Amino acid sequence: MSLSKLKLKYLRSLRQKKFRDREGKFIVEGFRLTSEALASDFPMELLVFTDDFLGNPDHARLVHRARERKIPVEEVSRRELDSFADTVTSQGVAAVIGKHRYSLDDILKSNRGGSSSMRERRPQVVVALDGVSDPGNVGTIIRTADWFGACGVVMGEGSVELYNPKVVRSTMGSIFHLPILPEANLLKTLGELRKQKFVLLAASPSSPKSYLDVPYFQRTALILGNEARGVSAEVSKNVEFVVSIKRLGNADSLNVGVSCGILLSRFCQRDGSP
Amino acid sequence: MSLSKLKLKYLRSLRQKKFRDREGKFIVEGFRLTSEALASDFPMELLVFTDDFLGNPDHARLVHRARERKIPVEEVSRRELDSFADTVTSQGVAAVIGKHRYSLDDILKSNRGGSSSMRERRPQVVVALDGVSDPGNVGTIIRTADWFGACGVVMGEGSVELYNPKVVRSTMGSIFHLPILPEANLLKTLGELRKQKFVLLAASPSSPKSYLDVPYFQRTALILGNEARGVSAEVSKNVEFVVSIKRLGNADSLNVGVSCGILLSRFCQRDGSP
Repeated sequence: MSLSKLKLKYLRSLRQKKFRDREGKFIVEGFRLTSEALASDFPMELLVFTDDFLGNPDHARLVHRARERKIPVEEVSRRELDSFADTVTSQGVAAVIGKHRYSLDDILKSNRGGSSSMRERRPQVVVALDGVSDPGNVGTIIRTADWFGACGVVMGEGSVELYNPKVVRSTMGSIFHLPILPEANLLKTLGELRKQKFVLLAASPSSPKSYLDVPYFQRTALILGNEARGVSAEVSKNVEFVVSIKRLGNADSLNVGVSCGILLSRFCQRDGSP
Repeated sequence: MSLSKLKLKYLRSLRQKKFRDREGKFIVEGFRLTSEALASDFPMELLVFTDDFLGNPDHARLVHRARERKIPVEEVSRRELDSFADTVTSQGVAAVIGKHRYSLDDILKSNRGGSSSMRERRPQVVVALDGVSDPGNVGTIIRTADWFGACGVVMGEGSVELYNPKVVRSTMGSIFHLPILPEANLLKTLGELRKQKFVLLAASPSSPKSYLDVPYFQRTALILGNEARGVSAEVSKNVEFVVSIKRLGNADSLNVGVSCGILLSRFCQRDGSP
């Protein structure tokens, strides 16, 4: 079996940001991400797989579930798949997904994980990206925010595109778990978060103030900056705290995803308090 | 100018592990890593650059310093450089470096950072890798261990090769800062660390025990496992503590480099204590 030329052209076009923008669609690859997409509220427009994919019963069930939900399913050749897939070994499955348009309200209303009484006590944390540019870093940050039950992620101007295949892949499925605002107006969004009683906290390796010396807040917005330039001056002057993670050795810097994990491990859980 | 065919063949051979093993050499690329290599105790066997590299005064100084130290320096064409470089844009500079053979004693004797009185009080932490396989993860772990002043890194069997170009690059220079034991016998090394009063602590997402519930120790060996399989059963049954980082949201797992940062941020600094 084979895809129509038109459909193949469409799938290939989605490798480019401008077509993802225009169509409001993106591609996920591999069994795990495709399964996560199918289990989410994101609309699946098309599922494609190679004939060897069905050999595994879990894989066959995924295709069966998609068919039950009236999602168009098509078999493709390995060569066709490789022509629009980003990964070399894409496990023989991919899907076209419609973008989900979240608003800041979705983030503010998201009460993630735990019982309702626990939720009351648990701090609410929003992660904001000020020009984080490496796809792997952004994916890792989203995955880490998901692990620690953050309310959502705000991606300011100059950050890498959320639907970049490498970002999608390195979220390990978390792109489907929590509200994310791509291409947000960062200063405006931070202003709105402040009105909602979020304390704004920017990470900067050059700050003399350790994150361990900042008290807990019920609502924190954690701002992470570009890998080379850090958080912009305009954002920094509008935050309550600029904090660093104290260097005890000789490395020039910490990876921004690692920094995100260290800061979330503190600000998302009260029992991490000093 | 141009390299001799024999030299070019040698440089290209170093893209393969078996030749890096045989020759005891590896390649670093880019201004930053080459500078770090030159400033380190690692022997530099050859420095190569393209003619456009010298346009920047910092770059010219690097070449000058290498010449002062009687290191062979050769100009190459961009095409020659690309034929043995791992990165597409290698900034026009690369070097052949001799591997440094560290022993466990180097790790035990390493007293990194801080004043001597601070060192007395500061916990000593060794990071041990049990089959961590992604080059970017291993590089990030080495960089993070360096940031937090860990005494060294032990790479057990099944971990990716330390001198893999992607590992070297993602250490961001930290490969030259702290003692690393590649291809170590992990069980044997952990046994020796225990004799030296190190408390062995393995990370596992399925452990009911939070890392926050483990007390401080003066000497900790932190063991991180394979991305998919975690720490092996054989290692786990030989440690004092198996700890997890509590999941508050919905992600399936945390990245191993992020986990490393969170655990080191706690066990390397006393003031992170609860």
